Amino acid sequence: MSLLVVGSVAFDALESPFGKVDRTVGGAATYFAVAASFFTHVNLVAIVGEDFTEEHANIFARRRIDTRGLERVPGNSFFWAGRYSDNLNERVTLATELNVFETFNPKLPEEYRDSRYVFLANIDPTLQRSVLTQVRRKPKVVALDTMNYWIERTPGELREVLRHTDVLMINDSETRQLSNEHNLLLAAKHIFKMGPKSLVIKRGEHGATLVDSKGVFCVPAFPLEEPQDPTGAGDSFAGGFMGYVASAGSTTDAVLRRAMVYGSVLGSFAVERFGLDRLRTLKKREIDARARHFLKLTQFRL
Amino acid sequence: MSLLVVGSVAFDALESPFGKVDRTVGGAATYFAVAASFFTHVNLVAIVGEDFTEEHANIFARRRIDTRGLERVPGNSFFWAGRYSDNLNERVTLATELNVFETFNPKLPEEYRDSRYVFLANIDPTLQRSVLTQVRRKPKVVALDTMNYWIERTPGELREVLRHTDVLMINDSETRQLSNEHNLLLAAKHIFKMGPKSLVIKRGEHGATLVDSKGVFCVPAFPLEEPQDPTGAGDSFAGGFMGYVASAGSTTDAVLRRAMVYGSVLGSFAVERFGLDRLRTLKKREIDARARHFLKLTQFRL
Repeated sequence: MSLLVVGSVAFDALESPFGKVDRTVGGAATYFAVAASFFTHVNLVAIVGEDFTEEHANIFARRRIDTRGLERVPGNSFFWAGRYSDNLNERVTLATELNVFETFNPKLPEEYRDSRYVFLANIDPTLQRSVLTQVRRKPKVVALDTMNYWIERTPGELREVLRHTDVLMINDSETRQLSNEHNLLLAAKHIFKMGPKSLVIKRGEHGATLVDSKGVFCVPAFPLEEPQDPTGAGDSFAGGFMGYVASAGSTTDAVLRRAMVYGSVLGSFAVERFGLDRLRTLKKREIDARARHFLKLTQFRL
Repeated sequence: MSLLVVGSVAFDALESPFGKVDRTVGGAATYFAVAASFFTHVNLVAIVGEDFTEEHANIFARRRIDTRGLERVPGNSFFWAGRYSDNLNERVTLATELNVFETFNPKLPEEYRDSRYVFLANIDPTLQRSVLTQVRRKPKVVALDTMNYWIERTPGELREVLRHTDVLMINDSETRQLSNEHNLLLAAKHIFKMGPKSLVIKRGEHGATLVDSKGVFCVPAFPLEEPQDPTGAGDSFAGGFMGYVASAGSTTDAVLRRAMVYGSVLGSFAVERFGLDRLRTLKKREIDARARHFLKLTQFRL
């Protein structure tokens, strides 16, 4: 079923102990769309500048990604530069140039307005809300990402869009900040009162946790000997998760568990190389093989 | 099969945001023995002072714990005082009084010398090694815990006992320190060259990871809304793990996976109340129920 994503398409400059790239296509919506397209058709809504050429747009070509919602306007695309620490678990932002992203006002092409699955990547909650009002029928699943900036600066607007959110996908520190509660189980209960029925806590090297009315499900991070660049891991996770949910067409407990695994699979591939390099060459059979590897990693019998 | 544990039996003064106890029986060997005794017979070797009364020793009574190796000598028992931070993930040591523990020179009672499973809790590696020389036949499994103090101060002695160790059970920071390697997979490879065939990395609220030649197995921490006191969690984990291994009498992959789960189960119960309070009243059927809960927490089908 069609999956809509709204978020950033950007250029990234990335540095880690394993290398450096000056300018590569990135952005939450890019990672999400590429990851999700292994599972389902994706409708992309984002904004780029004139510096985003056909060659750059190649990342979306020959995939199930509809780019009619990728608006191109005069100016430069969103640019982010960051450097990771030796262990990859800390990062410094070296530059954030919003450029055309500053005027982003997502407009859904007519063909997108029937999307049944929606992912609102980390952007201004007011824009996230405006996207939902443009979708014709209440979507089957609305998933949302956000960050400390919006939790602190626009709490009212964030609360408003959360009322219409089914799955909140944030990291552990955002979970604690949003709920003002350190314990993640208590934090989840608090967040359920705001609207979401499911909370997916992304915990980086410690994996991910799903909390909902059916209980808790934990999936570890895939053990890698040499992850190179964590950029986009969370958005690739979200893409794998929502791509699988949309392809399954339901949100039973079994589906959500599998979605957590596919999310972890996509996140683990994303960090293996710089930027989108690993996702570019990824095959569906590699995804399936790694999902089976997650079984080996976690399964036991009593 | 008989399981030998050598380590500390002590008094602890504990403070956390959830309360305070001035003086309660603790020590690594105590937590280990109580946890393991749910699965198998335990031979305890430790030293206490005259302040350790029959009433204190009650924690071992009516359990499958042989205390013929619990030496009582003039002086006071080992005493430790610590305070935990608001989130329980940091702790300050307020006092460490070794007392009679300073002269601890473990001597195995004749009846213990046929123990087939051995756990060397965190003590001086020279003493750990001396215990192994007193065991008559090469044990089926020797598991060992250690800490930064020994890794830094007695690296040679630690290396010597590691040559005779099958399962090393330490936390993530100790794993990194011992191997001088941040990535835990690479750290494990490094540690395998030192002797151990299996590495169990205790990761606190992030669960535990087993690495061996068969691969990696991850188990999450059991989600608790209100853990009260982390003291003894790692030793209770070790007790559940080794108790189960000894009761199973083998170290197949399936057994080690189950041992990881039972370790996590015992660790999760230990933190629910102060000191040994929760383990004191724990029933085998509660252990089995929580192990099944771990299935719910982690299992999925593709």
